[in-house]
Amino acid sequence: MRTIVQKYGGTSVANTKLIKNVARRVIRAKEAGNRVVVVVSAMGHTTDELLSLAREITPCPPEREIAMLLATGEQVSIALLAMAIDAAGYPVVSLTGFQAGIETDSAYTKARILSIRSDRLQKELNDRKIVIVAGFQGINEAGEITTLGRGGSDATAVALAAALKADQCEIYTDVDGVYTADPRIVPKAHKLEFISYDEMLELASLGALVLQPRAVEFAKKYAVPLVIRSSFNDCEGTLVGEVKSVENGRLVSGIAHDLNVAKIGIFDVPDRPGIARHIFQALADEYINVDMIIQGWVRNDHNDIVFTVARDDLARVIPVVERVVKEIGASGFVYNDRVAKVSIVGAGMVTNPGVAAAMFKALAREGINIEMISTSEIKVSCVIQEDQAIKAVGALHAEFFG
Amino acid sequence: MRTIVQKYGGTSVANTKLIKNVARRVIRAKEAGNRVVVVVSAMGHTTDELLSLAREITPCPPEREIAMLLATGEQVSIALLAMAIDAAGYPVVSLTGFQAGIETDSAYTKARILSIRSDRLQKELNDRKIVIVAGFQGINEAGEITTLGRGGSDATAVALAAALKADQCEIYTDVDGVYTADPRIVPKAHKLEFISYDEMLELASLGALVLQPRAVEFAKKYAVPLVIRSSFNDCEGTLVGEVKSVENGRLVSGIAHDLNVAKIGIFDVPDRPGIARHIFQALADEYINVDMIIQGWVRNDHNDIVFTVARDDLARVIPVVERVVKEIGASGFVYNDRVAKVSIVGAGMVTNPGVAAAMFKALAREGINIEMISTSEIKVSCVIQEDQAIKAVGALHAEFFG
Repeated sequence: MRTIVQKYGGTSVANTKLIKNVARRVIRAKEAGNRVVVVVSAMGHTTDELLSLAREITPCPPEREIAMLLATGEQVSIALLAMAIDAAGYPVVSLTGFQAGIETDSAYTKARILSIRSDRLQKELNDRKIVIVAGFQGINEAGEITTLGRGGSDATAVALAAALKADQCEIYTDVDGVYTADPRIVPKAHKLEFISYDEMLELASLGALVLQPRAVEFAKKYAVPLVIRSSFNDCEGTLVGEVKSVENGRLVSGIAHDLNVAKIGIFDVPDRPGIARHIFQALADEYINVDMIIQGWVRNDHNDIVFTVARDDLARVIPVVERVVKEIGASGFVYNDRVAKVSIVGAGMVTNPGVAAAMFKALAREGINIEMISTSEIKVSCVIQEDQAIKAVGALHAEFFG
Repeated sequence: MRTIVQKYGGTSVANTKLIKNVARRVIRAKEAGNRVVVVVSAMGHTTDELLSLAREITPCPPEREIAMLLATGEQVSIALLAMAIDAAGYPVVSLTGFQAGIETDSAYTKARILSIRSDRLQKELNDRKIVIVAGFQGINEAGEITTLGRGGSDATAVALAAALKADQCEIYTDVDGVYTADPRIVPKAHKLEFISYDEMLELASLGALVLQPRAVEFAKKYAVPLVIRSSFNDCEGTLVGEVKSVENGRLVSGIAHDLNVAKIGIFDVPDRPGIARHIFQALADEYINVDMIIQGWVRNDHNDIVFTVARDDLARVIPVVERVVKEIGASGFVYNDRVAKVSIVGAGMVTNPGVAAAMFKALAREGINIEMISTSEIKVSCVIQEDQAIKAVGALHAEFFG
């Protein structure tokens, strides 16, 4: 018997009518003879609504209490979905993060899954029940409720699929699959039938919000076949898996853009061993993810360090940088939260040196200034002014797909 | 050092401004040198809103999933209150039912607290933290989330006060204390400074919604001094405790009324031993509380049995009665959900035989027909037509409080 893990995002369960719709899809998978585990997110904008309640109380709530607060969103969804499936006459049980044995570290609102104690899950599946699991949440060693950070339900689904050795992990969302660019911005963008884990990982990390990067990482590590599909239609979706041949015939698989970017520059950093570690350890201690880092040419034993973070994190980054600037004896710092990142991703570019040049040329043609560049074997990213991002994505899609 | 348990109901935490107000009260108790445990209900109408979501999914959701759903309401409140107290600079921690060690039976939405594993609570108090506990919820032996039924947060507060041997349990609500009748109906009703556990138990059971009966029972059993106060002002409130003298000078302490009543009559029940047990066991199996039971005079080896239940439960009662009527060979049944119960309560009436008569006289004077009567040592209750309830309460208050 095949084991399927399905994950439904917040837009797929935004109201009770949609929840009933999800129940029908889940039942269809059960009726097809599968063991079915379903991971759900909080309904619609619940998480944002809860966060704005918290903000009405205080600008800086403790992370532990944020996790306590946000975990309720998914608990509502699992109960309602279980009710809908029960009403259709199928045995079902809903499980919170702690009941499903999802053990995480203690980074309360950005926790990582450490392991899955799957005995309860296995027992319920053996009892022929459909199992509904709250996404985005877990429990740490001390029995405290944690949340996995935005998009964490994807990670829950993939981790469960890995733990249960599932045959497939289906990520249901409000788009049909992975596109060559965001179709809301580039009308000519088309859906990909297949994309490799590595390409998906880059796309996800670069702001293509269809899937959480950590989930892709996990899927790659445990070779969990992922399918990204819409919960609103029966289209095929995109399969994410291992590349079958090095020559997949595509130079570039997709264009990504990310508007949730801020850049910070620290000036006149003394050129001493351990200085970079000092700066970025201080940020890591606050669970702030740093994305791109650029260090210029050393002049007079000093240089400038520029890096980017998620714009959401900027308010927490500034006090850390303020402190660090004093500690290391830099001359000061500036930040800019009106920037964006555009990227091209493709497993083919590793063997083809002209791709980055083609990207820069396409941007230059539109008069777009590149502020930072970062490359990996399968992607090139540029930080540009935020108000030029849409134009940039269009130009890049035309260059590589058009 | 004194230990105080405070409980704040849904109206006291209905929005973030009120939650900050509660935080100030909690801090005041802490500043006065107490160890403080706070139990909170769900914000405002959250529980009703969650239930109506469930009803959009299905008319008969499984009880386990209702508990799973409703438990989220209190979890939101504890997180927000903890944030408000933390923002004021006081060490605080919020605990869900399972984290607070509240162990219940498995009557999912009407669970009873079996015991409190208080080690976590004690540890947090010893660390000088203010501890915020989710009311209304617990966990059963199997690790499943349960809820205690409407008003269950009172039971949580009293059970915690008993487990921690607290010096006082303060129940904060939207009224100043216990009144001689509902002040919204009887403008002349006045607040009682003191009321005995037994009287409070009767008043609470009879629909004076200021306190949950089970909470009073628990408080009496463990001799927890209760104070009922408003969270919106600093008035004194009503103390609930053991009667100091048998002669407390009052014949009647209060008038209660309950509109959440339905009566059911089963006709021509065969007069055999075990028949009553059969009927009421069937209802108990569905966790339906039966209130008044009246069995008439046996004629021709048959009689009629009439009983009342909470009107909310009627939809669940009817199919049970339908089945039972067939099983026992009764001739049929009727029900009426347009009835109400009015009651007088007073520890003094046990030694004064004229009180019930005075009650019947006062009702008769207003032309109110009595459909059922039930008495205990300290109360007399009458079931009457629902549309006469308000008039009846006024007449009884005039009779006994002049």
